[in-house]
Amino acid sequence: MALRRGALSALKKIYGKDRLKTTMEDRVCYAYDAVNTKYTPDAVVFPKSADEISQTLTLASKLGFPVVPRGSGTGTTGGSVAVEGGVVLVTTRMNQILDIDTDNFTAEVEPGVITGDLHRAVEANGLFYPPDPSSSGVSTLGGNVAECAGGPRAVKYGVTRDYVLGVEAVLATGEIIRAGVKTAKGVVGYDLTRLLVGSEGTLGVITRIWLKLLPLPAATATLKVSFTSMEAAADAVTRIIASGTLPRCVEYLDEASIACAQSIADLGLPEGCRSILLIEVDGSASEVAASLSKVVGIVEESGAMAVEEARNADEAKHLWTVRKKVSPALYLFGPDKINEDIVVPRSAIPKMVKKIEALKKDYGLPMVSFGHAGDGNIHFNVMIDKKDPAQKLRAEAVINELFDHTLALGGTLSGEHGVGITKRPYIGKEIGEKELELMRGIKKLFDPKGILNPAKIF
Amino acid sequence: MALRRGALSALKKIYGKDRLKTTMEDRVCYAYDAVNTKYTPDAVVFPKSADEISQTLTLASKLGFPVVPRGSGTGTTGGSVAVEGGVVLVTTRMNQILDIDTDNFTAEVEPGVITGDLHRAVEANGLFYPPDPSSSGVSTLGGNVAECAGGPRAVKYGVTRDYVLGVEAVLATGEIIRAGVKTAKGVVGYDLTRLLVGSEGTLGVITRIWLKLLPLPAATATLKVSFTSMEAAADAVTRIIASGTLPRCVEYLDEASIACAQSIADLGLPEGCRSILLIEVDGSASEVAASLSKVVGIVEESGAMAVEEARNADEAKHLWTVRKKVSPALYLFGPDKINEDIVVPRSAIPKMVKKIEALKKDYGLPMVSFGHAGDGNIHFNVMIDKKDPAQKLRAEAVINELFDHTLALGGTLSGEHGVGITKRPYIGKEIGEKELELMRGIKKLFDPKGILNPAKIF
Ligand SMILES: Cc1cc2nc3c(=O)[nH]c(=O)nc-3n(C[C@H](O)[C@H](O)[C@H](O)COP(=O)(O)OP(=O)(O)OC[C@H]3O[C@@H](n4cnc5c(N)ncnc54)[C@H](O)[C@@H]3O)c2cc1C
Ligand SMILES: Cc1cc2nc3c(=O)[nH]c(=O)nc-3n(C[C@H](O)[C@H](O)[C@H](O)COP(=O)(O)OP(=O)(O)OC[C@H]3O[C@@H](n4cnc5c(N)ncnc54)[C@H](O)[C@@H]3O)c2cc1C
Repeated sequence: MALRRGALSALKKIYGKDRLKTTMEDRVCYAYDAVNTKYTPDAVVFPKSADEISQTLTLASKLGFPVVPRGSGTGTTGGSVAVEGGVVLVTTRMNQILDIDTDNFTAEVEPGVITGDLHRAVEANGLFYPPDPSSSGVSTLGGNVAECAGGPRAVKYGVTRDYVLGVEAVLATGEIIRAGVKTAKGVVGYDLTRLLVGSEGTLGVITRIWLKLLPLPAATATLKVSFTSMEAAADAVTRIIASGTLPRCVEYLDEASIACAQSIADLGLPEGCRSILLIEVDGSASEVAASLSKVVGIVEESGAMAVEEARNADEAKHLWTVRKKVSPALYLFGPDKINEDIVVPRSAIPKMVKKIEALKKDYGLPMVSFGHAGDGNIHFNVMIDKKDPAQKLRAEAVINELFDHTLALGGTLSGEHGVGITKRPYIGKEIGEKELELMRGIKKLFDPKGILNPAKIF
Repeated sequence: MALRRGALSALKKIYGKDRLKTTMEDRVCYAYDAVNTKYTPDAVVFPKSADEISQTLTLASKLGFPVVPRGSGTGTTGGSVAVEGGVVLVTTRMNQILDIDTDNFTAEVEPGVITGDLHRAVEANGLFYPPDPSSSGVSTLGGNVAECAGGPRAVKYGVTRDYVLGVEAVLATGEIIRAGVKTAKGVVGYDLTRLLVGSEGTLGVITRIWLKLLPLPAATATLKVSFTSMEAAADAVTRIIASGTLPRCVEYLDEASIACAQSIADLGLPEGCRSILLIEVDGSASEVAASLSKVVGIVEESGAMAVEEARNADEAKHLWTVRKKVSPALYLFGPDKINEDIVVPRSAIPKMVKKIEALKKDYGLPMVSFGHAGDGNIHFNVMIDKKDPAQKLRAEAVINELFDHTLALGGTLSGEHGVGITKRPYIGKEIGEKELELMRGIKKLFDPKGILNPAKIF
């Protein structure tokens, strides 16, 4: 127990009995995220306001215990776990959508709002919040901002960063700051907003978010396209992007991911299908019709075996539901998952696919890849049994080769999942020593005592 | 002369005689930007590489002289002038477009590339770089990144920040860093890229830029809409935005700006016209037709006196040329200009217009406003004779009232021009003390000796 007695009684004064959890059963529930690691916190608190968070951090600064912000714990790099013990601060009780401004296309939300709840609320007003990580039914907007979440629609609409106008955050010292604006533009002073976006809970606890919204597109259409090989699918992606049509989603599944998807629901794929693309276009009805015919032409030229359009919203929804469940279904191939989300220039996807085929041959471990092909963002998974040290070592060698190849192609180690604890050993491959020094300097400036989500990123 | 002798001879070693200017005539040419102030630098240098810039900053660190990065000097807040003397470092010889990647929709450029040159080069490849400040015929991309430039198309396409994937920069210490990625996405480590964007040359000299491009829209259409009052025009803007149609530009000119425009070319406006909107829509041909008819419907409902569509590309270009020349033509109303670029929520434009009318009555000074109405970004100008101290004081009172009202409406003091020296006295109105302390801390981290563009922002 890293917390001194005095800390717990002070926390109880802030949270009462109901919103402070200290039993082992309760704490264990907050010891994980989507990575299979376990760090049990000493206590879990559920603040209702920035003021309570400020009190908590003031106390933590005084007594020197770690505080780890947490939304829904769907992170895939260990960002929300208490590696050094201390208090996990869960934002799920701060879940109010405070404003949807239909004149100015903005929303003001608390950090614990579930991403999907915001989607539904703004869509009911004819508006659109594009970022849609596959975890959107569970993830919080605070978690999305802290990770700069992406998702399938980023091809056309960009990532969470592109929709954050401003934030309120509590610093490690307990001080509350406001960064950014509520307006369409703003450039006064350094961009603290985007510094907080993607900072993985290490620079401040985000307590309020001002978001930009768009008009809801009038129409969408969803295609499921089957190919005899992953190479053919990758080639089609490159051609679609280069054609100048910008679908809102271009997702791919390789053969192993298809097996996972099929374990959830029959996708009705043709015999010999080894890869599929899910493509979605949006816009006005006429635009959708035009994009659709262009995309169909391109995939047919690229040798698609079958091209099927979802006949209605339900069919489209079904496809996306299956897609969203691929990740949890990977355990078909092994009890433990090592999950990466590298990005390469889109035109380098065919090269990366070849590399992955070679890795499979060379290492003989089950590897599954799928993801946001339209961005060059590949979710690559090695399935192993971590209890077998030899397998673990081999998997590490795979990841090292994968990362080196990614960087050689001009890519990056993470498109949307962040560094957390799992990519921490590799950050020096991509980020130079001076750049890391600047980042550590910024961390020190925001959190001089290192109490906010320690042992993450670097 | 703030430079020691040794400094000049060391600079001559780096730049030779040709690219180091020390005569008064040469230095005076770099003593101004678009603000009417004058700070003559001790020397002006024209680097050709990041390495030369690194040598310059290493020297400046050692000897302790200021270095001020400068592109084309079109900035409107005094950002590129040597307030404390020292060396002005002009990037115009680093003007190569190094790559236009038509498969991945990216460009790699040196900082001295003229914005308009990049537009033409990518458009020749069927691609599109949306940011288009009205100064794009002259401004550099390095200056655009350093200011986070906006421009008319930001309504639909966002600002420079949204197109910068990564940068190379030389720090005040002479160290060269790389921030960001070349890919569509990337979230490894803190976002140093967006920290440099909008940092107004105070954190590093940007020496290379990786930009995101879009497919070039197939069609555009441009409308000139006349109104009997500024209020009617403002009301039309609010309705257009709220309708869900997103034109790429929604610019307005008030009565005084129209007079400036008319001094350049006859706009053929109807009798009694007191305000015009320039509206441009883009997309596929069918989309453009649909948006156009929607917009025309709305402006007619809002009481437009005349709605004219540019009949061809030349007519559209002519309209934009006239619009771009409004700012330089303001001197019709007085020898000195105080220029602000406040932003209010778009729905608050009518309220701001009322306020501006009241300010005109109360202070009796010539005031001209125009700008990017679609963003709520108002370019507000008070024309005075600075030699008259009473006028100067009155103008300052106007600006104070304007700023307070802007903030009261939920707005910001600058949408795209930055703080520089002219808004420096006012930054505390918008940014809190703790937030300023963080910004100063970041400055210190990047530039411990304060040699890079000193006396700017805060
Ligand atoms: C099945 C599945 C699919 C996924 N698909 C995608 C996808 O398509 N795209 C994508 O980008 N991600 C995806 N993810 C990853 C994950 O869902 C996202 O990173 C999400 O943004 C995390 O939100 P959360 O609320 O669960 O945050 P958590 O996991 O609780 O926390 C994530 C990080 O954010 C910090 N944090 C949380 N709240 C705050 C706050 N208020 N202030 C400061 N820091 C905070 C935490 O400290 C931690 O570092 C997926 C995950 C799963 C399990
Ligand atoms: C007529 C007119 C119209 C304008 N219209 C618009 C508009 O519509 N939208 C808009 O946003 N702005 C507009 N501006 C303002 C101005 O053009 C922009 O701010 C532009 O980005 C400045 O580019 P520049 O190359 O002239 O930079 P400069 O004026 O030379 O410098 C501007 C700032 O950037 C810094 N800087 C320059 N290059 C670098 C570099 N390589 N590395 C680091 N720092 C650097 C300088 O130190 C300075 O602080 C307008 C200006 C004029 C005169």
